[in-house]
Amino acid sequence: MTAAASTRIENALARYSAMTRRTVERYLPTGRPGDYLYAPMRDYLDRGGKGLRPALLLATCEAFGRRVEDALGPAAGLEMLHNAFLIHDDIEDDSPLRRHGQTLHKLHGMPLALNAGDALAALAMQPVRQDPALGSRVRDLLISEFSETIRVTTEGQALELGWRREGAADLAPNDYIALAGKKTCWYTTVAPLRMGAIVGSYGTASLAALSRFGFFLGLAFQTRDDLLDIELLSEPGKVPLGDIRESKHTLLLVHLLATADSKDRSWLSGFMAQRQSARTPAQCARVLTLMYRYGSVDFTRKFGAEMASSARAYFAEAFAQAPASDHLTLLHELVDFVVDRSK
Amino acid sequence: MTAAASTRIENALARYSAMTRRTVERYLPTGRPGDYLYAPMRDYLDRGGKGLRPALLLATCEAFGRRVEDALGPAAGLEMLHNAFLIHDDIEDDSPLRRHGQTLHKLHGMPLALNAGDALAALAMQPVRQDPALGSRVRDLLISEFSETIRVTTEGQALELGWRREGAADLAPNDYIALAGKKTCWYTTVAPLRMGAIVGSYGTASLAALSRFGFFLGLAFQTRDDLLDIELLSEPGKVPLGDIRESKHTLLLVHLLATADSKDRSWLSGFMAQRQSARTPAQCARVLTLMYRYGSVDFTRKFGAEMASSARAYFAEAFAQAPASDHLTLLHELVDFVVDRSK
Repeated sequence: MTAAASTRIENALARYSAMTRRTVERYLPTGRPGDYLYAPMRDYLDRGGKGLRPALLLATCEAFGRRVEDALGPAAGLEMLHNAFLIHDDIEDDSPLRRHGQTLHKLHGMPLALNAGDALAALAMQPVRQDPALGSRVRDLLISEFSETIRVTTEGQALELGWRREGAADLAPNDYIALAGKKTCWYTTVAPLRMGAIVGSYGTASLAALSRFGFFLGLAFQTRDDLLDIELLSEPGKVPLGDIRESKHTLLLVHLLATADSKDRSWLSGFMAQRQSARTPAQCARVLTLMYRYGSVDFTRKFGAEMASSARAYFAEAFAQAPASDHLTLLHELVDFVVDRSK
Repeated sequence: MTAAASTRIENALARYSAMTRRTVERYLPTGRPGDYLYAPMRDYLDRGGKGLRPALLLATCEAFGRRVEDALGPAAGLEMLHNAFLIHDDIEDDSPLRRHGQTLHKLHGMPLALNAGDALAALAMQPVRQDPALGSRVRDLLISEFSETIRVTTEGQALELGWRREGAADLAPNDYIALAGKKTCWYTTVAPLRMGAIVGSYGTASLAALSRFGFFLGLAFQTRDDLLDIELLSEPGKVPLGDIRESKHTLLLVHLLATADSKDRSWLSGFMAQRQSARTPAQCARVLTLMYRYGSVDFTRKFGAEMASSARAYFAEAFAQAPASDHLTLLHELVDFVVDRSK
């Protein structure tokens, strides 16, 4: 993508993020218990993030013809839900770092972090429930989207955690698609697109084509995320090869498991069966070397490019009911951004 | 209470529980991922429970003049939310046993259990959201009650977990009331009474007096629960002195901390500062001995009796808008049951 488009998108992400953050702020309690609940609850939100979800949601609302203000409630709610997921995800993975800082459970202990995630997930419905301007029909549709999002995401999370617990080594790229489709695509791309369209069209937009576009966009996003783990080896605030260390079922690992010869595969199974804390940097580097040697890196790059090209192919159908506009152009450029992003 | 009243209440609890369980069943998914999500999600619900919450909710609905069927949605939802709380509570406390079996995180590992709790908490709204017979106004009131319940309960949980993390030893019985009021009373007694009255009165009942009654009933319930920990020393399916071992801020412990001399208090601080797994049965027995010696057991019994008597005093005002009926008699007898129960 051009430098101009890249700047345009970064500005748009920052603008949408700031608006969403201001709305979130109106719903985050500041009272007591502060140190034990309300301070931890807002910590990840204060650290910022890429802002992809609010941008997709708000730009889609505008593309369908309504104002950005009309969709700030669901954008804020989804951002809160996303951060609640991150808190619990970090506990489940025992991740040490998140957004240039220690994870919440490392800072406050697991029990208080778990509880803060519960409180934040419940609060995430409030910006939708308490926005009278949405109207009751649109509000009910949005609340259904929230509840479907949690259902699908926890199903995906269960698959990933279950596979990791078993040290599942007999997986193929199709399993990865099933996993990422639930664990990532729904709440990262599909739900923002659907919720933006519901508000933007007063609940009249056809959502199936949007979901299809969002599914491919989400797979492109997750694939890029998988690759960033092995590309950003000295990024401050990130554990080098963190996904490998957690033996997360990235496409890289799933492809490697499906193609490695029996000797390497058996070594990998042993690596994955170890406790996470017992896995050494040298072992992680060996996994990385195998990923290059067996073509898993090339395969993942190619797969990501295919997902991005499918997303582009479905774009027109997804937004068939939206007239040409700057918002639509921005959404189109977001596809490139998701695929090309370097962090 | 008389043996006849006791049997009446136990029958009523069983009847209300069974009806609630059948409604819950309609909302619990049975599909995949089964082993990793939907089987763990239903496990605690399948193990049963006292059924106090559904009984309070359903009997209150009937006392206000509507049918038990009209309130099965919120009763099922609250039971699901309760069980989701239990899953996360057991993780936060690292409790080994729940309802005669291993806790969910001991059975499936912490990550899958945490995720199952998330999925169950989100699903808990469905029986209310999807019951068209409730009408939109009553439904909105009920959903507000759910969200308030989660807010207050997570605040109480944060206090308890924070105090435990700090090994807080400078607490007085008033702090206990603040804690139990949030952590237990709201979702155990206050919310069921309010939700039952909302359905039973089509949202017209005055809720303040019900909340007051529920608050005292909840404190009587929690005090009894605290005492059961030191009374049921060889109950199958229960860890002996489990609360002491977790250094849970029961009224027994809070009173002991406030009254022990400096030597015993400093020993207690040391006990509470230890990791839970390092606390020995002999140490737990010593805490119990101190509780008897400093009058903490007598104090707690007396306090529980006072809370029960306050609950009784507020009963008439709480149900002023409900005509005399068998349901009202049952609710009145439930107070005695809560205070006298032996498990």
